[in-house]
Amino acid sequence: MPAVRVVAFGGGHGLSASLRALRSRAAAGLDLDITAVVTVGDDGGSSGRLLAERDALLPPGDLRQALAALADDQAITQQTAKLLQYRFAEIPAGGEGPDPLVGHAVGNLLLLGLMEMLGDPVEALDHAAAMVGARGRVLPMARHAIGIEADMRGADPARPHEVVTVRGQHAVAVAHGHVEAVRIDPADPPVCAQAIAAIDAADWLIFGPGSWFTSVLPHLMVPQLAEAIMKSPARRLVTLNLSTDNETAGLSDADHLAALHRYLPGLRVDVVLADGRWVGEPEPVRRAAEGLGARLVLASVAVADGSPKHDPESLGVALVPVLGAAR
Amino acid sequence: MPAVRVVAFGGGHGLSASLRALRSRAAAGLDLDITAVVTVGDDGGSSGRLLAERDALLPPGDLRQALAALADDQAITQQTAKLLQYRFAEIPAGGEGPDPLVGHAVGNLLLLGLMEMLGDPVEALDHAAAMVGARGRVLPMARHAIGIEADMRGADPARPHEVVTVRGQHAVAVAHGHVEAVRIDPADPPVCAQAIAAIDAADWLIFGPGSWFTSVLPHLMVPQLAEAIMKSPARRLVTLNLSTDNETAGLSDADHLAALHRYLPGLRVDVVLADGRWVGEPEPVRRAAEGLGARLVLASVAVADGSPKHDPESLGVALVPVLGAAR
Repeated sequence: MPAVRVVAFGGGHGLSASLRALRSRAAAGLDLDITAVVTVGDDGGSSGRLLAERDALLPPGDLRQALAALADDQAITQQTAKLLQYRFAEIPAGGEGPDPLVGHAVGNLLLLGLMEMLGDPVEALDHAAAMVGARGRVLPMARHAIGIEADMRGADPARPHEVVTVRGQHAVAVAHGHVEAVRIDPADPPVCAQAIAAIDAADWLIFGPGSWFTSVLPHLMVPQLAEAIMKSPARRLVTLNLSTDNETAGLSDADHLAALHRYLPGLRVDVVLADGRWVGEPEPVRRAAEGLGARLVLASVAVADGSPKHDPESLGVALVPVLGAAR
Repeated sequence: MPAVRVVAFGGGHGLSASLRALRSRAAAGLDLDITAVVTVGDDGGSSGRLLAERDALLPPGDLRQALAALADDQAITQQTAKLLQYRFAEIPAGGEGPDPLVGHAVGNLLLLGLMEMLGDPVEALDHAAAMVGARGRVLPMARHAIGIEADMRGADPARPHEVVTVRGQHAVAVAHGHVEAVRIDPADPPVCAQAIAAIDAADWLIFGPGSWFTSVLPHLMVPQLAEAIMKSPARRLVTLNLSTDNETAGLSDADHLAALHRYLPGLRVDVVLADGRWVGEPEPVRRAAEGLGARLVLASVAVADGSPKHDPESLGVALVPVLGAAR
């Protein structure tokens, strides 16, 4: 039986949860061919500094997190993944003068070096993947950094009804107010042929969990990705978030699904996966899923301590019958 | 036949040449157990900045070079070694504001991160060695950074006969004038038990090539290393430099050998290896070698283009009969 070819779209912690879930199943023997297609709109923190100070080709943060999530279970590759995630902190004792490394993750600097040295982001990511023995491939959503901007109502608390444009993924993610519309800049960025090929050949395309406006929806706004997604014979899975964050305050699960339709009107979905304890009243979600052509699957995918986080192991276990049913 | 256990002392390019020579023989099938014991006095460039700005436990530069020299021949490990050696350069186009990464080698930042994350320099180096598939172990000469200072005559060109103390490995290495004496600070730094164990168990101890006062002799000034070297049943090889640098201007090959005796008076040597074309009149060198108990071996170990650099392949070939004769 051939491998099940899965492409997971997203960025940040949400995509990591998805990838850790898939990796746990691959480690348990399920034959999965995993490709992550990662947002490249991050303009905050370490990634933002590397873009501003060093003209980095891509913001490395979300790519690094995806690589760490796919790292093999061996002690050495897990230690390398931990190193990639290690972030230089302020030193209590302090050295002489300001410390320009504070806030940078080692993996961001390593990816920056690889991209500069090799000139090609895919070659750089493939090498970093080999360094952590990644059980899959990590590709960027576009071949260079993109901007994200949103029209937000009430972002200025003094003028709750006014719509203002908030520019930058970080600013959008932390802004308060209601997102009226999201755009990427440029509107039609160049993509990786390898990402298109993976989408063409996929059995499953997985969207979410993650920051809906800044990590999940942007993929649908890239014309070449959207076209490939629409043309792909793959089935499509949407994993819903467990709670809302700043940028999606006030949005229900049904609203999240409606947003997929709004940004890629022709998108059909096969399965919507949600946590039974977090989804609340399932009927509106079920109806929204059916509006996209999908059935709603409820499973226990959250961590046990009650915090709104996906448990990779549980999410992986929940994915198996879904992915298996596609064969 | 058990492996030939070799401990190579030094730092920088000289030690790299020695390690690349040994690695080439290991790759060719010679059963070698290689340990590098590396100077930790570098206070210049990227390493110096990491010491000053971030209280780095050890200056990573020479350790990084040793790791790269021992990297396995596989395409992936060679690429990782190349990444460790990759140095962030000024960007012609320029980003916004100053770029604090310029001048840092990726491997220096990676070693810094590993040392901070793991807290133990040997554990950090062993992991970095695994990342490049190193054919040997890289250990620091001391468990924390040390200072190097030299009394130099004529370092101030206006006062050619005056002796002044020059502090810092970088300052000593670039100063003009005649080195009268070199010291380390502190005088008795803590060492790694693993380095002592390697010296105790060694078949061969290899000194040089390298910057004599700042990379080769400092090992002999560390009391615990000196004691271990004196007690070790291993044979000892000294590989002479091909030319003098700033810090050894005016010193002959015989003077180099005499300096070994001066800084560790009881040191006996078995073999002195020199390049026949570079050594000039061999008799004074032969007599100086015999003064240490050593025979002089002349071989072709320099690169073919006439520059004063060791060719790793030729040096490796020259080492085989020497190391083999010890069995």
